[in-house]
Amino acid sequence: MQHAKPNIIVIGGGTGTFTVLTGLKKHPVDLSAIVTMSDGGGSTGILRDELGVLPPGDLRQCLVALSDADQELRDLFLYRFSNESLSGHNFGNLFLSALEKTVGDPLKAIDVAHRILRVNGRVIPVSSIASNLVALLKDGTEIIGEHRIDERIPERSPIQTCQLRPSVPANPEAVEAIKNADAVVIAPGDLYTSIVPVLLPEGIAQALASTRATIIYIVNLVTKPGQTDGYTANDHLEALQRHLGERMIDVVIMNSAQAAPELRQRYEAQGEELVQWTGPLSSTRTRVILAPLIADDIQEHAPQDRLVRSLIRHDQDKLAHAILMAL
Amino acid sequence: MQHAKPNIIVIGGGTGTFTVLTGLKKHPVDLSAIVTMSDGGGSTGILRDELGVLPPGDLRQCLVALSDADQELRDLFLYRFSNESLSGHNFGNLFLSALEKTVGDPLKAIDVAHRILRVNGRVIPVSSIASNLVALLKDGTEIIGEHRIDERIPERSPIQTCQLRPSVPANPEAVEAIKNADAVVIAPGDLYTSIVPVLLPEGIAQALASTRATIIYIVNLVTKPGQTDGYTANDHLEALQRHLGERMIDVVIMNSAQAAPELRQRYEAQGEELVQWTGPLSSTRTRVILAPLIADDIQEHAPQDRLVRSLIRHDQDKLAHAILMAL
Repeated sequence: MQHAKPNIIVIGGGTGTFTVLTGLKKHPVDLSAIVTMSDGGGSTGILRDELGVLPPGDLRQCLVALSDADQELRDLFLYRFSNESLSGHNFGNLFLSALEKTVGDPLKAIDVAHRILRVNGRVIPVSSIASNLVALLKDGTEIIGEHRIDERIPERSPIQTCQLRPSVPANPEAVEAIKNADAVVIAPGDLYTSIVPVLLPEGIAQALASTRATIIYIVNLVTKPGQTDGYTANDHLEALQRHLGERMIDVVIMNSAQAAPELRQRYEAQGEELVQWTGPLSSTRTRVILAPLIADDIQEHAPQDRLVRSLIRHDQDKLAHAILMAL
Repeated sequence: MQHAKPNIIVIGGGTGTFTVLTGLKKHPVDLSAIVTMSDGGGSTGILRDELGVLPPGDLRQCLVALSDADQELRDLFLYRFSNESLSGHNFGNLFLSALEKTVGDPLKAIDVAHRILRVNGRVIPVSSIASNLVALLKDGTEIIGEHRIDERIPERSPIQTCQLRPSVPANPEAVEAIKNADAVVIAPGDLYTSIVPVLLPEGIAQALASTRATIIYIVNLVTKPGQTDGYTANDHLEALQRHLGERMIDVVIMNSAQAAPELRQRYEAQGEELVQWTGPLSSTRTRVILAPLIADDIQEHAPQDRLVRSLIRHDQDKLAHAILMAL
């Protein structure tokens, strides 16, 4: 099937996926996001455990990224309650959870959310059944639960692979979307807790094996302690490939710019370092796009000390241009 | 000013106001609701105390009553979280509170809520400043706070009058709405905690004194323990008149039907009895409409025992017809 506009699927969850979607939506493309349903911990984990709903966090971020609603509604969805009795719940998470309870069916509830938020595109849960992520470490230990895998435990053995328990079937809409895509973009994000879990439901690897889509992988800017310590670009790619099955990545997009030295030092003090390009990849079929992708001016309020601090983050426009170059 | 459609203001909050608005909105009328900003207790009280927002409960109910949005969105707004970490918060209350925090201004946030819920009419907070309701009892005691006035304490002295502390100015939009109305309907509801507080902000009594609108009072179906024990229709009217100032009620609408004996007995066992009509009112200027107004089939799930129980409630259509007759 030939598309007037390229049909791009973004795989992931979290800030990196938000950045990719926000950058790409300014261009004439059809966009969908496929997000993990194995998140636990935080607001998402509490809602999932106490109400039995699909984990809402990643859905919410992608819905807002693709929303054409007024800024007020988009701000509202990203608002986090700071008061005691609301336990740091995010408004958008409460919205999706309450909607699933009142509508009764999780996929129908997500459809209603698309309408209310006037979403231009589709946000697709990778499965309609929530599951638990299990990490198998190199020393044979199992860590069960996304939020436990995400804990920083310095002495822990490195992660070997991840799986879902129970194994769940992919949402047929996710399988169809991958099959009909022109490009599948694997977004930057926590490798083992945001990206890999989208590849694990039954049917996703097969869909990726059979699609004509160009598969594009955006390598993270920095390593994540406890998940990808010391990982080079090649290590990221190999870890991903272990979960992808037979289908190889077609294009790797990677940052070539350096961060400011003081910024790099602050990250390094926390055990996070810029991911290094270490020469040719093991796959000879894979194209590599190296480009400066770091945003100049991303800042956050550090919650403890109320300082405004700079972050090493992808620039949404530079990233979108690199992706469109790869099509 | 002559209106093509009669311009009706409903004063109150809670279930009774919801019933009046839902019944009237089926007819060709322009509708607004003016609601109290002195609620405390429950989900509303927690949000008000912890986030410093206007009490959202009554706003939410009226916004939903006048909403033309899809049923899914209206159901969502009335959903109450039952899980532990959400303390019985109502979704609509969380929505209004988060919106006030993200928009920054309470009245602007209510405007945004009107747009999102596609409200046909206006819901107007009686003041843009939250205040505390204080009841002065006949024995001289003061009870401070709407939720404390609402507690059932059998030995407590009867309520003499109520006031707001601090005294707050009326929202100018509420004053204008009353001045320009064809009718002001004082809805059924908790007399001292839902109805009287709307009359108390500075400027409301004066607006009611000067409006050309027909002022219609709908007498409650049953008495409320701790507030209106043993009150006849005349007692309700006199209590209201004590807070209304110089302006007299033009029309009193009152139920004339009996409830089923077993239903009446269940209410009486809880200290609630049908309000009695005891002959001519003290005001000779006031017209009285006596009509059967009880709904046949209103039921609720009793939360403790999961029984479905019948309730004595106004029928929205009978009530709307009686109001339209009074214009």
